[in-house]
Amino acid sequence: MTQAIHDVLGVGNAIVDILTQADDAFLAEHGMPKGGMTLVDEAQAHAIYDAMGSGVEASGGSAANTIAGVASFGGKGAFIGRVRDDEFGKIFAHDLRSLALVTPDAQRTMNTHLGACVELTEGDIDPALVAASQITYLEGYLFDPPQAKDAFRKAASLAREAGRKVALTLSDSFCVHRYHDEFLALIRDHIDILFANAAEMEALYPDTSLADAASLLAGQVEVAAITRSEKGSLLVSGDQRIEVPAAPIDTLVDTTGAGDLYAAGVLYGLTQGKPLAECGRLGSIAAAEVISHYGARPEVSLSSLAG
Amino acid sequence: MTQAIHDVLGVGNAIVDILTQADDAFLAEHGMPKGGMTLVDEAQAHAIYDAMGSGVEASGGSAANTIAGVASFGGKGAFIGRVRDDEFGKIFAHDLRSLALVTPDAQRTMNTHLGACVELTEGDIDPALVAASQITYLEGYLFDPPQAKDAFRKAASLAREAGRKVALTLSDSFCVHRYHDEFLALIRDHIDILFANAAEMEALYPDTSLADAASLLAGQVEVAAITRSEKGSLLVSGDQRIEVPAAPIDTLVDTTGAGDLYAAGVLYGLTQGKPLAECGRLGSIAAAEVISHYGARPEVSLSSLAG
Repeated sequence: MTQAIHDVLGVGNAIVDILTQADDAFLAEHGMPKGGMTLVDEAQAHAIYDAMGSGVEASGGSAANTIAGVASFGGKGAFIGRVRDDEFGKIFAHDLRSLALVTPDAQRTMNTHLGACVELTEGDIDPALVAASQITYLEGYLFDPPQAKDAFRKAASLAREAGRKVALTLSDSFCVHRYHDEFLALIRDHIDILFANAAEMEALYPDTSLADAASLLAGQVEVAAITRSEKGSLLVSGDQRIEVPAAPIDTLVDTTGAGDLYAAGVLYGLTQGKPLAECGRLGSIAAAEVISHYGARPEVSLSSLAG
Repeated sequence: MTQAIHDVLGVGNAIVDILTQADDAFLAEHGMPKGGMTLVDEAQAHAIYDAMGSGVEASGGSAANTIAGVASFGGKGAFIGRVRDDEFGKIFAHDLRSLALVTPDAQRTMNTHLGACVELTEGDIDPALVAASQITYLEGYLFDPPQAKDAFRKAASLAREAGRKVALTLSDSFCVHRYHDEFLALIRDHIDILFANAAEMEALYPDTSLADAASLLAGQVEVAAITRSEKGSLLVSGDQRIEVPAAPIDTLVDTTGAGDLYAAGVLYGLTQGKPLAECGRLGSIAAAEVISHYGARPEVSLSSLAG
C-alpha cells in the first residue's frame, strides 16, 4: 500500500449554517426537537427563516467541520461534497479552499461540485482520492437522500478495497431511529471507527446500558468513541475502555460543532499513530474550543492548543 | 408637524460583512490601512477573498447596523438602501425585516430595493418615509458614488423641509480627506447631529486640538458626538461639553460596529428626549456590547442592558 497523501477525507453535506438565537417556544412552534436535527423541505426552511431573527452565516456541514478541525491540528484534509452554484456555494467552497493555507495538498484535490444539483451521487466519489486517504470519514446525515446513501456505501467499499480505514459518525439519534437496521449492518460490515453520542447509542442499542453497548460495539469496530457532553467521552477498542474528561471551558456559548470537532481530534490523533488516550485528549481540546464561541469551526489554531 | 412614525431612518449601503482573522502582514500585503475603510473594486475584492482564511458572514453596513441598534433599544427604525438580488441580498433583507419582530412598523415601510444595481439613487429616497421619521441618519460612506451623494443630499433636504432632524456619521477619515470641503459645507448647511471619531475630527479640522475642533463644531450643529475608543466620548451642544466614559467590557473581541452602535444609543436617547449625558451612556452601553463579540450587530437586547 502506498503512502497516503491525505490524513482524513470527509464525505458529507456542503452546508452553510445560519446561526441565530431562539427560545424554546420558537422551536416548539416550528416542530423542532431541541438539540436534534430535523429535516425540512424548502418551503419549511423559508417559513422558519422568515419567522426567525437576524442571523450569522458560516460554513458548516458535519464532516466538513471535522475536516476543518483536522486541518487546524496540522493534518491533511480533503473533502467530497456538492455545493450549489450560488453565493452560499461560493462561501462554502472558499472556506474549504482556505484550509489549503494550512494544508497545501487540500487545494489540489478538494472535490467540490458546483451545480444546481445538491445531492451527492456515486459519481462524485473519486476512487483515487479515497485510496489516497488514510481514513475516509462519513457523516450519518448522508443516509437520508437515497442517492447519497449509494455514494456513502461506495466510498466505504473503495476505502476498504484500498486497505484504508472507514470512519462513521452517527450524526443524529433521529437519523439512527429511521435507519436502525441499516446502520447496524453498515457498522458490522464496513466501519472501522465509529463516533456516537449517548442519545445515538441509546437509539442504536435501546434498553442497553452504556457499558454493555460499548462491549457490543467493541466486537464490531476497531475503535468506538462515545461522547457524553460535559462528562467527556469513552473510547472503546478491544478490551480497552478509556474514559476521557471534557476539557475545561470558561463559558459555554454554542454547542454547534462539538461532536464534529471532537471527531477531528480523535481522527487526527489516530492518523498520527497516537495512543488512544491522547486521541481522546485532542478530541476534548477541539470540542472545548468550538463550544466557547458561535460557529462550528475552530477560531484558533488547534495545533497551538494541543501543546 | 405630525407625529413621527419612525424614530430613526437610516440611509446607507446594504452590505453583508465577511469577518475573518488576519494579521498585520496580510493587511499590508493587500494595501489595507489598519482600522480604515479602503474602497476596492470587484477584482480586488475577489483577490482578497481568495487569499484570506475562512470567514463568517453577517449583515452589516454602517447605518443599517445603527438601525438594528435603535430597534434593539426598543426604538422604531426604518432603512433605505439597495440590495442585490442574490443570496447576500436575501440575507440582508431578511435581517432587516427581522427587526420588525421588535418594531412592527419597520416591516411595513422597510425600503429595500432588490435589483442588479447596487447604487443608491435619488429615486430611492421616499419623501413620505423621510417626513415620517424623527431623525434621518446618513452614513458618510455614501459620499463616494456620485449618484448616492445626490440621494444623500436629497434625503437631508427633505428631512429639513419636513421639520425633522438630520444626522450624519463621517464614517472614515480617508473619506473625510477625499471630500473635505464638501463635508464642511454639508455639515454647515444640512446637519443637526454629527458623529465623528478622533481620526475623522483630525481629518476635518487638521492641526486643531480636540477642544478647539469641538467648539468649531458647536457653532455648526446642534449636537456633536465625538468618539474616542476606550477613552469614551465627548458630547458637544452649545456651551455643553459632556465627557462620557466607555462602558466596561470583559474582553475586547472585535471593534466592528462600535461607532455604529454608539450612534444607535445616542440617536435612540435623543428621540426619547433624554438628557445628553444619558444619550451618551446609552451609546457607551451599545458600543460595549457589540465589541464583546464578533459581528457588528447586538446579540442581546440593548433595552435590557439600558436598565
